[in-house]
Amino acid sequence: MDPRVEEHARVLVEWSAEVKKGDQVVISASPRAHDLVKAITKAVAEAGGTSITLMQSEEVSRAFYDGASDETLEVFPRHMKALVEQTDVFFGINAPVNTKALARVDPKRIVARSKATKEISDIITGKRWVATVHPCETLAQQGDMSLDEYRDFAYGAMLIDWKEASKNMNLMKEKLERHNDVRFVGPETDLYAKTEGRIWIAADGKYNMPDGEVFTAPVEDTVEGSIYFDVPFMQQGKVVQGVRLKFEKGEVVDFSAEKSEATLKAILEIDEGAKKLGEMAIGTNRGIKDYTLNMLFDEKIGDTIHCALGMAYPECNGTNESAIHVDMIKTMDDGEVLAGDEIIYSKGKYFYEK
Amino acid sequence: MDPRVEEHARVLVEWSAEVKKGDQVVISASPRAHDLVKAITKAVAEAGGTSITLMQSEEVSRAFYDGASDETLEVFPRHMKALVEQTDVFFGINAPVNTKALARVDPKRIVARSKATKEISDIITGKRWVATVHPCETLAQQGDMSLDEYRDFAYGAMLIDWKEASKNMNLMKEKLERHNDVRFVGPETDLYAKTEGRIWIAADGKYNMPDGEVFTAPVEDTVEGSIYFDVPFMQQGKVVQGVRLKFEKGEVVDFSAEKSEATLKAILEIDEGAKKLGEMAIGTNRGIKDYTLNMLFDEKIGDTIHCALGMAYPECNGTNESAIHVDMIKTMDDGEVLAGDEIIYSKGKYFYEK
Repeated sequence: MDPRVEEHARVLVEWSAEVKKGDQVVISASPRAHDLVKAITKAVAEAGGTSITLMQSEEVSRAFYDGASDETLEVFPRHMKALVEQTDVFFGINAPVNTKALARVDPKRIVARSKATKEISDIITGKRWVATVHPCETLAQQGDMSLDEYRDFAYGAMLIDWKEASKNMNLMKEKLERHNDVRFVGPETDLYAKTEGRIWIAADGKYNMPDGEVFTAPVEDTVEGSIYFDVPFMQQGKVVQGVRLKFEKGEVVDFSAEKSEATLKAILEIDEGAKKLGEMAIGTNRGIKDYTLNMLFDEKIGDTIHCALGMAYPECNGTNESAIHVDMIKTMDDGEVLAGDEIIYSKGKYFYEK
Repeated sequence: MDPRVEEHARVLVEWSAEVKKGDQVVISASPRAHDLVKAITKAVAEAGGTSITLMQSEEVSRAFYDGASDETLEVFPRHMKALVEQTDVFFGINAPVNTKALARVDPKRIVARSKATKEISDIITGKRWVATVHPCETLAQQGDMSLDEYRDFAYGAMLIDWKEASKNMNLMKEKLERHNDVRFVGPETDLYAKTEGRIWIAADGKYNMPDGEVFTAPVEDTVEGSIYFDVPFMQQGKVVQGVRLKFEKGEVVDFSAEKSEATLKAILEIDEGAKKLGEMAIGTNRGIKDYTLNMLFDEKIGDTIHCALGMAYPECNGTNESAIHVDMIKTMDDGEVLAGDEIIYSKGKYFYEK
């Protein structure tokens, strides 16, 4: 086994989730993540916890949609609720069997199922949870790499000095919170929002691994201006690329996409909250250099910002509600992030870098 | 995918567990059983149920034992208890990753963990549960076959006409229950026991798949005579073969084995109940022709009987208590099963066969 699998497990169990004696742990993983499941199970046991593993697979999810009537989509898995209620720590490992398995399922059915099971995701996000990946061929392929290249890529992003990264991100959080607004400026982009009363969060590997972003929920109705997201992203099994959005009084009033515009349109029409921003964020992880169509990595890329349509995180004091939360990314090598009269980031440099 | 995987899933969901609208289903499976998990998930959804899958793996169990202190072995997985309490149907799929992964773990530690989690297994056996296998290389290897041969073997045993088989087994149950005793006669064998007040169970695929046996718990102290078990079986990692037992007043008074006699001796010495029969049974599944050292199949072989030392099943009104339940099998091509003055089976024919 690649020794980095065990290092990764230790980062997850010791730094991220801080598993302790008696902890009730759930590991959610596909068959491809068997090695990491072993390593986490051992690390959890060493910390004095007990774990069970849920098998996740896009092919199995697809089988559910293939078999379920619209009525069955609404059947609430109360056994799953009972499980997560009694769980202290939840590890969600992404190691897809087939990222396209759900591509031809009607998105409305996926949304219906998400709504029917939302209570469960809400319980999980109220616990100690960590989302991560286990390098496998599917992710490598998605990222246009060989498996070995992908392993170097993923572990390069995850096995960094989290103590140091945490210190810098917390400096950024403090600076942002000294001001009442934020502004993203760059090619085809000038987006402004008030952040009064909102909390900026330094995402330092406690919930996501890899991590590295400082994010908030803007005051929804104050978002004004335009933005061009040049990094492609996956949504509903489609690659969406070159998204342009224009906001007035917080709402999207104009939109286009160079690729999969219909998917973007469908996203915006899901509900009222889907037309507003639930998140504005600055990526800070210099261990990630390229996008791989995996949001867990892409939104953390150093020298980028991202915004999400839809649901705002309550921990930011965000209030925007929606069934979705769709992140979109912009490279900022030629851009700036401003808060009040201070520069947070400018053309390749964070303020904390000399 | 082998179309028999979907047929298998339908048998499990429709015949065995009779999954219905709103059912909360747990599938417990190793990564090797991914195809069957898909097929079951779809069939459960078609029946209107909702399922989650637990990933089981001997390698992951081993990782737990490698990491856990003796104190951690006692940590009760209350999240798992909460899950199974809310579960209606539990599918346990055997498709081992490595049957020998636990071979070098101290058996005392395995027993300690089993005891600590016994409450959970007890809850599961109180629900609708089904134990089955998914053909994989590991099982084929254990049965001395290629994977394709093993698939033919396993599906041959599982994809039979269960309605017809159930009808015949229930006829046998009724006939046996009209009498107060049972007698197994054959080469080197004449074993008698009273069955008054005991229930014969027609095992027709509701809990085990494959299935096919009619079994009871004899009145412990009435077992008299001798028996020669000519089919080998696995016990404590050893193949035990050619077991001869002699009973007086229900207890083993003489024993020998052609292979692994020391293991047989150790079994008999585990506790008081281990010296008595907890089960007497008639195998009826003509779809199984050879033993494979997997008791789920072997005890069901057509033209055989089997007896188990140790624990009796309460559902038969059995009272023998023991930490063990060790099944041993005898071919009956030259033998007879009698109940009172009636022939249940004689030299290749069950009474219900013309």
